[in-house]
Amino acid sequence: MSKPSLLAIPLGGLGEFGMNMLVLRSGDDMILIDAGMMFPEVELLGVDIVIPDITYLKQNRQHLRAILLTHGHEDHIGALPYILRDLNAPIYGTRFTLALVHKRLEEHGLLDKTDLREVIPGRKLEVGPFEVEFISVTHSTIDCVALAIRTPVGIVIHTGDFKIDQTPIDGQPFDFHAFARYGHEGVLALFSDSTNVERPGYTPSERTVRPRIEELTRAATRKVIISCFASSIPRIQTIVNIAAATGRKVAFIGRSMVDNVEIAHGMNRLTIPDGLIVRSQDIGSFPPEKLVVLVAGSQAEPMSSLSRVAVDNHRLLTLDERDTVILSARIIPGNEKAIFRMLDHMFRKRALIYYDNDGGTIHVSGHASQEEQKLLLNLVRPRFFIPVHGEYRQLFRHAALAHTVGSVSEEILLIEDGQTIEFTEDAAYRREPVTAGRICVDSGSLEEIEEFVIRDRKHLSEDGVVVPIIAIDKHTGQIESTPEIVTRGFLPSDNGIELLAGAREVILRTFEGSNAEEKTDWSVIKEKIRVDLRRYLKKQTSKRPLILPVILEL
Amino acid sequence: MSKPSLLAIPLGGLGEFGMNMLVLRSGDDMILIDAGMMFPEVELLGVDIVIPDITYLKQNRQHLRAILLTHGHEDHIGALPYILRDLNAPIYGTRFTLALVHKRLEEHGLLDKTDLREVIPGRKLEVGPFEVEFISVTHSTIDCVALAIRTPVGIVIHTGDFKIDQTPIDGQPFDFHAFARYGHEGVLALFSDSTNVERPGYTPSERTVRPRIEELTRAATRKVIISCFASSIPRIQTIVNIAAATGRKVAFIGRSMVDNVEIAHGMNRLTIPDGLIVRSQDIGSFPPEKLVVLVAGSQAEPMSSLSRVAVDNHRLLTLDERDTVILSARIIPGNEKAIFRMLDHMFRKRALIYYDNDGGTIHVSGHASQEEQKLLLNLVRPRFFIPVHGEYRQLFRHAALAHTVGSVSEEILLIEDGQTIEFTEDAAYRREPVTAGRICVDSGSLEEIEEFVIRDRKHLSEDGVVVPIIAIDKHTGQIESTPEIVTRGFLPSDNGIELLAGAREVILRTFEGSNAEEKTDWSVIKEKIRVDLRRYLKKQTSKRPLILPVILEL
Repeated sequence: MSKPSLLAIPLGGLGEFGMNMLVLRSGDDMILIDAGMMFPEVELLGVDIVIPDITYLKQNRQHLRAILLTHGHEDHIGALPYILRDLNAPIYGTRFTLALVHKRLEEHGLLDKTDLREVIPGRKLEVGPFEVEFISVTHSTIDCVALAIRTPVGIVIHTGDFKIDQTPIDGQPFDFHAFARYGHEGVLALFSDSTNVERPGYTPSERTVRPRIEELTRAATRKVIISCFASSIPRIQTIVNIAAATGRKVAFIGRSMVDNVEIAHGMNRLTIPDGLIVRSQDIGSFPPEKLVVLVAGSQAEPMSSLSRVAVDNHRLLTLDERDTVILSARIIPGNEKAIFRMLDHMFRKRALIYYDNDGGTIHVSGHASQEEQKLLLNLVRPRFFIPVHGEYRQLFRHAALAHTVGSVSEEILLIEDGQTIEFTEDAAYRREPVTAGRICVDSGSLEEIEEFVIRDRKHLSEDGVVVPIIAIDKHTGQIESTPEIVTRGFLPSDNGIELLAGAREVILRTFEGSNAEEKTDWSVIKEKIRVDLRRYLKKQTSKRPLILPVILEL
Repeated sequence: MSKPSLLAIPLGGLGEFGMNMLVLRSGDDMILIDAGMMFPEVELLGVDIVIPDITYLKQNRQHLRAILLTHGHEDHIGALPYILRDLNAPIYGTRFTLALVHKRLEEHGLLDKTDLREVIPGRKLEVGPFEVEFISVTHSTIDCVALAIRTPVGIVIHTGDFKIDQTPIDGQPFDFHAFARYGHEGVLALFSDSTNVERPGYTPSERTVRPRIEELTRAATRKVIISCFASSIPRIQTIVNIAAATGRKVAFIGRSMVDNVEIAHGMNRLTIPDGLIVRSQDIGSFPPEKLVVLVAGSQAEPMSSLSRVAVDNHRLLTLDERDTVILSARIIPGNEKAIFRMLDHMFRKRALIYYDNDGGTIHVSGHASQEEQKLLLNLVRPRFFIPVHGEYRQLFRHAALAHTVGSVSEEILLIEDGQTIEFTEDAAYRREPVTAGRICVDSGSLEEIEEFVIRDRKHLSEDGVVVPIIAIDKHTGQIESTPEIVTRGFLPSDNGIELLAGAREVILRTFEGSNAEEKTDWSVIKEKIRVDLRRYLKKQTSKRPLILPVILEL
């Protein structure tokens, strides 16, 4: 019989920010760690989300024993609804993580065929030849775990996303002892989060945002509107506590915000005093000086709640003069332009806007800075170290950081998606890469859950491409002449003229139905046109062409 | 006779970052301060640069007495080649500023019809009813001035771009005394640079970059490649001095870098010891441990020298293992993704890359931080204050900053492009806005100077739209099937099929002629296809349709 070995096969997250996914395989048994998505780069027009190419998993589906989730962020669970069409294995995760997965699978009608199994940090689990312990770690959401996996050739530790928060809001501590214990026993390989490797020092505790946000809330003479990531339950808890402490009530706006608050509240992971909540439909009639509103959309995603509030197009919430707005979130690279455009709209309304830590901390990261990464390396002192979760330069710098720490006894392996490492008890070898890459998904609008479509060659040639070209006169804010619509591989031969005339109507109606501020915001207009046109074309033709709106400013 | 008054009409730069342009008008006499361009937002596909709408200037062209330039950056002079078709007035600027303008107008064949008049800081100039003094200020390039303009209703001061550098590299100081003198006499209105209003404290002196860059150069065992803005003559001087001090020679790569170095050197504003320069064609054969290479393209513009070096596609310069790369420039918001993609390519080559100030200062801003902005307000203590050069939130915050300083005796006026203020000796009034907006220009590629085209309704309907759709298989890096080409309002009826076949050939040839790294960089591929296709279509049809390449990743 051949000696045991372990293959580590990264399918996503090594070379890009997002879509984290790693396969571990020993013989004919395979486990998958996380199944994340990411948002597309600007160049990928007409695409909503991006997921890893799972060709390798599909080819080996009979060997997949389990999907292990480290936490409930989209870049770790967001690909599940798409890959579960092709894969079937029980999904293991902590309670809050599984609740988020449950919600998502329910929306996609995938609950029946999926086996969700709750795990408790500290307990162990047998999966084929692997024994897995879920280790409690701190991060920006709750119920986050690292994984310690006993394999036939040694122990593998995967940190998931983590920071080392000595004073977490929810009281679930970073489990130093578990890492120390495995480090003492001897760890074959460590896979660790590289996201914040460019930040020296320590990431401040989640607790450090409270003083400044409370100060701004106390100083506010009208509504306080705060936006943070909807999964940041500790942040939401802090804001709820501040509202209670300052004699304000709290309302929640945005589907993801409302959903996550309900889930966390339902499992007693978010404490909201009785009578503190104001229903969103009552915001308009509630005294503004007594209100804190938590709103989703901190990244100015087109059509998100906060974006719509900024351009005066939200049904339930208006932004008024002297309201306070606190953006308690990171400005993710690539989103700067959109976020600052949104903030400009808010400044024009004479709101008081806070969006950086200059006057005091209103946001802290959920990822480990350099000193925490070093501490983890020293606790675990693995034989092999593989930086994960990052663009190439971040993986590289994490490798360099580990080199300066000196606690990796054999080798630091810098690999990217698809590049495979084989571990034996004695060594690690680079093996033939497997298929890896990015798959673009058109998932329906943010507002509605529709059947999704994987964009592939087949799809493109079947459903074609539609390019609506809208010329907007910047002076008048009006559409000049009729919109042009260019199509390829899409038009039915018989009713083409009528269909296009109808599509032009849709575009004009969408545009006219937008308010003045939306009309000057191309990203909003393009997204609205894309959503409405898609619905129209789907209905008329049952096809879902790729829609690429182009706005010409005249 | 009616009382004298002064109109201030911003045509650009108030509400966006770039394309600075301000009109001052008294009766029938008008002067223009700066004529800048800006780079388009991502949404403006197929467009190279953006300039202000000068409808107002064209309507009043007989009244234009002078164009006054504060300095030679593109956001202050870049629109000149385009607006001089419609306007004619002498252009006043300092020596280095005019040298840059001269170069640009020469390329556009506009030198003959333009009257460039050099000014010397401290001297005064009569233009119609205006007396203008050019005041020396410090910034990131050289020969920068503010303007003090004596008008029929009082003194107006426009800062241009500035920081307050107490120890400028070139010895041309910030002229505190001039500002103090006008402040003492009494200033009607101050227009001041808002760019860095979000930064507390003082911007460090240009001198502060020397220690770290010198340290990195001394520590380098091979080539040192440094990229900065090509107009940053003080930065280039510092790097030349470091090369000389560390026993290295220096080479220059990139058209803008070579041009600006030649211009500054020719006017003795850049001192390069004899024998220090290595010709760019000799870089390959020169001992790498004895070389510093200054390269244009710090913003990872597609096809720029640095971008091409990163993907191993530069004729003269390669990036090798253990070379040092120093990005001595700001990462301009919106460019992060492209810059980090470029840096990732460099990390893969195992170069040593420095791109932030974490380990020591390698870049400082050229714009005033809050304390400098306050100092200027206190020196000038104007009756009216108008923040300029910034997005809305920056103008707003500059207005708020001025409010806290309290040195504006009458009113702080927050206005955007087109919004007009009328000053009398006694007061300021908001008047009817004039036409203002953005005009998109397709200026030819970065590599070649072609006839430019203003994109307007007429152009769109005349030359049409071409959307090449290229499906690239991420696994193989190859184009899948034949590229699709969608057109509108463009195809001649007779030879359409042939023309499109030829265009597909062009696309395939461009793609095949690119190297492996370029093929994975969509922004590069799109730009190359756009440039080559434009050339082909122009030649075949004499038309210049809008070309919008779309890349689908499979």
